[in-house]
Amino acid sequence: MNVKKLVKEVSFRNENFSQWYTDVCLKSELIDYSDVKGFFIYLPYGYALWEMIQQFMNQELKKTNHQNVYFPLVFTENLFQKEQQHIEGFAPEAMTISKIGDKTLPEKLIIRPTSEVLFSQYYAKKIVSYRDLPKLFNQWCSVVRWEKTNKLFLRSKEFLWQEGHTVHATKEEALQESFDILNLYKKLGQELLAIPFVSGKKTEKEKFKGAEVTYSIEALMYDGQALQAGTSHYLGTKFSEAFEITFQDANLQKQFAHQTSWGISTRLIGALIMVHGDDEGLVMPPYIAPVQIVIVPLQMKNEQVVKKAHLLYQQLSTAYRVEIDLQNKNIGWKFSNHELKGIPLRIEIGKKELENGELTLFIRHNSTKIKLAEKDLLKEIPLLLKKIHQEMYQKASDHVKNNTYQAKTYDEFKQHLQKTGYIKMSVYENEAEEIIKKETGATARVILDEPLITEICPVTNKKANQTVLFARAY
Amino acid sequence: MNVKKLVKEVSFRNENFSQWYTDVCLKSELIDYSDVKGFFIYLPYGYALWEMIQQFMNQELKKTNHQNVYFPLVFTENLFQKEQQHIEGFAPEAMTISKIGDKTLPEKLIIRPTSEVLFSQYYAKKIVSYRDLPKLFNQWCSVVRWEKTNKLFLRSKEFLWQEGHTVHATKEEALQESFDILNLYKKLGQELLAIPFVSGKKTEKEKFKGAEVTYSIEALMYDGQALQAGTSHYLGTKFSEAFEITFQDANLQKQFAHQTSWGISTRLIGALIMVHGDDEGLVMPPYIAPVQIVIVPLQMKNEQVVKKAHLLYQQLSTAYRVEIDLQNKNIGWKFSNHELKGIPLRIEIGKKELENGELTLFIRHNSTKIKLAEKDLLKEIPLLLKKIHQEMYQKASDHVKNNTYQAKTYDEFKQHLQKTGYIKMSVYENEAEEIIKKETGATARVILDEPLITEICPVTNKKANQTVLFARAY
Repeated sequence: MNVKKLVKEVSFRNENFSQWYTDVCLKSELIDYSDVKGFFIYLPYGYALWEMIQQFMNQELKKTNHQNVYFPLVFTENLFQKEQQHIEGFAPEAMTISKIGDKTLPEKLIIRPTSEVLFSQYYAKKIVSYRDLPKLFNQWCSVVRWEKTNKLFLRSKEFLWQEGHTVHATKEEALQESFDILNLYKKLGQELLAIPFVSGKKTEKEKFKGAEVTYSIEALMYDGQALQAGTSHYLGTKFSEAFEITFQDANLQKQFAHQTSWGISTRLIGALIMVHGDDEGLVMPPYIAPVQIVIVPLQMKNEQVVKKAHLLYQQLSTAYRVEIDLQNKNIGWKFSNHELKGIPLRIEIGKKELENGELTLFIRHNSTKIKLAEKDLLKEIPLLLKKIHQEMYQKASDHVKNNTYQAKTYDEFKQHLQKTGYIKMSVYENEAEEIIKKETGATARVILDEPLITEICPVTNKKANQTVLFARAY
Repeated sequence: MNVKKLVKEVSFRNENFSQWYTDVCLKSELIDYSDVKGFFIYLPYGYALWEMIQQFMNQELKKTNHQNVYFPLVFTENLFQKEQQHIEGFAPEAMTISKIGDKTLPEKLIIRPTSEVLFSQYYAKKIVSYRDLPKLFNQWCSVVRWEKTNKLFLRSKEFLWQEGHTVHATKEEALQESFDILNLYKKLGQELLAIPFVSGKKTEKEKFKGAEVTYSIEALMYDGQALQAGTSHYLGTKFSEAFEITFQDANLQKQFAHQTSWGISTRLIGALIMVHGDDEGLVMPPYIAPVQIVIVPLQMKNEQVVKKAHLLYQQLSTAYRVEIDLQNKNIGWKFSNHELKGIPLRIEIGKKELENGELTLFIRHNSTKIKLAEKDLLKEIPLLLKKIHQEMYQKASDHVKNNTYQAKTYDEFKQHLQKTGYIKMSVYENEAEEIIKKETGATARVILDEPLITEICPVTNKKANQTVLFARAY
């Protein structure tokens, strides 16, 4: 271990990925534990990331006429049970409230693990005619699911998310909505998170039980494990039949409405860390970075240097999220801290820079230093941020490409799995999936829209009917 | 009742204020009931108001270096009881969770009614030196309090709010913070809500039990009843002593930290409705209005008219929140609906307007129509919105002025109270307050920073020691 490591106390990523992840989360002050296991505290630096995701999504959802709402935290047990299929996965995890102070409630309440039933009940009451459709509601809130194991950002008893709930007159329109949202999630990855998501339908076994079709976006972490990063469901008429969400169509016929629901959560922050982070800590893609640029005067006692730093701050802070580091600490500590926090760009200004009319720029994601004429700064910054974003996206895409395998036999599958990563195999639906999960721990991530690799499923020896992307997953 | 009334189904404000309020809330689709009593659904138009408040506050809080965070929904019963005074008011209202699915929890969990204990626990862990101070955290979330009676926006079992929790090295600094926030709340009233808040300290009896000092902002509704619209607490060292939030000062001495907490909630939306609304429905102040301008083509089949309406929409929508009403409904229904929703400005464009190169503008808050040369529109709109805001603020201020009385005797007090409104009286602290509440239902809103009106308290005949603003309150 080198000295720098000892200062930062972040484990080496290749030695113990799990410990590295925890270290990075805690030391960079993104998140912390509370006194209830599995309930986390989102600290300013971590919550700012969530606010950036909210901003991006709100802008995009507004363009497509989605409306933000807020539905209650609780609903009755009776309502919860109205759609039987979807509660299958949630009932054992649901928080039940039976008492207020010392008084027992006449009917038990459930803290929302997801809100399909609440939205459905409202829609059933309000939708009368095809003219009332579509309804495109979204809410930002927290939900509670009593997960047994917990991991910072990735799996917690309470997490923050957005849940969209829409109603449409036809199957085509609803399917289109769930597909459009899937593409929006991919856009979020491409433009904000610098994460290339693989997307596709979930298999029957892995889909949301309340849905006809579940689409999902999957991300590949640095350690080769996959992470389900968001889902978009076509619910069909499952809920509308259970809740009687009907409308009169243009021919005065009564029809059941078609619904979708979709969500992304604070898991995305976990993905951001695990995809981009390195031995020095976080690496923030520039468009989501809460601090995009940090300005550091190299000689704190040199008035000219400090003055110049302030001047640069003024010039940049109208267009970028900038900080100036005037802490009374040594430069090494400061640099180390900026790197831990993953700030994309550090501008160093010292006596030498002043003399030469130039600036030293440290670029976090590839640890390079460049010199820049001061007069070119305002012109260069947007180009530089764009280049950083593109390079980070490309690096993450290369990682996916270099860790995606194709298996024609089950042995090949198992060999690839030792290296981790994505493995494509053509299989005979559920049966193969169950064997694979039991024997190797890998799960079906998505069904790929690709031709069959083999005619016969190598696991079951039956006729293969789909090509599936497998991986070990968080 | 006139025909218009029958169409809109909104009660007359002067006949039945309470029913009028409920009608306006529901018909304008701000909010709705859920299946659990006291848990409300915030619909798009109502939630948009909350988002405007969030935006305003986030901008202002950022300027003063406050940071947004998210702390958990639940904490242990044990933690809740660590500061005994503050739970006095909350314990009977707290939601207690003892079961997950069928499994009983080892320790009961409380759904947050407010989060002082959670923040305090975190601060105790993290704060070591005076260099770590101040800490200025804020969160937007929902809290749950099991109120027995419920009223849309004003009193509900779950409500949305922001709760700020700060820590400071000195009493002076913490007091200043709680005072600065009080002023920020007043600014929110002045600049966004067009509501003049009266502010001051709460009396001993009315203050938050966990605080040394509670400041509050109060608003006067149209019906003359007051509404506590926000509070800012100087907590002193009550929590820091209970939780051991200590720090080493510059002289290496261990000190207890001084704290504040403060909050505003979705109650503000209730105030907005009750202060500004009229017989036609909502009246939105222009800077918070989710739709500031609605454009209505008067002849939907006239191509030139519709084209012009679209053109105006394009010109205005880059700078304002604008809608164009192209619904296939009659003009009377449309106008009535815009008025119900309280849209500040309606631009009517028809054949006659086209011929004359002018526009007809309907101004919601004073129900006047003006003609405007089309070429002046872009120049006039910002002036007009400003004028509307100022007039609405002035009207609300006049209402306060015209309904604030001064009482030198208890009889005078009782007479004024029949007319409702604010009544100032100089009293002998708790004792008078208790008698007044019991006998008249009026409560102490705030202690006024004004000289004594009478030397002797008219209620107790003891020496008066403070001038208090009384009112019946929601």
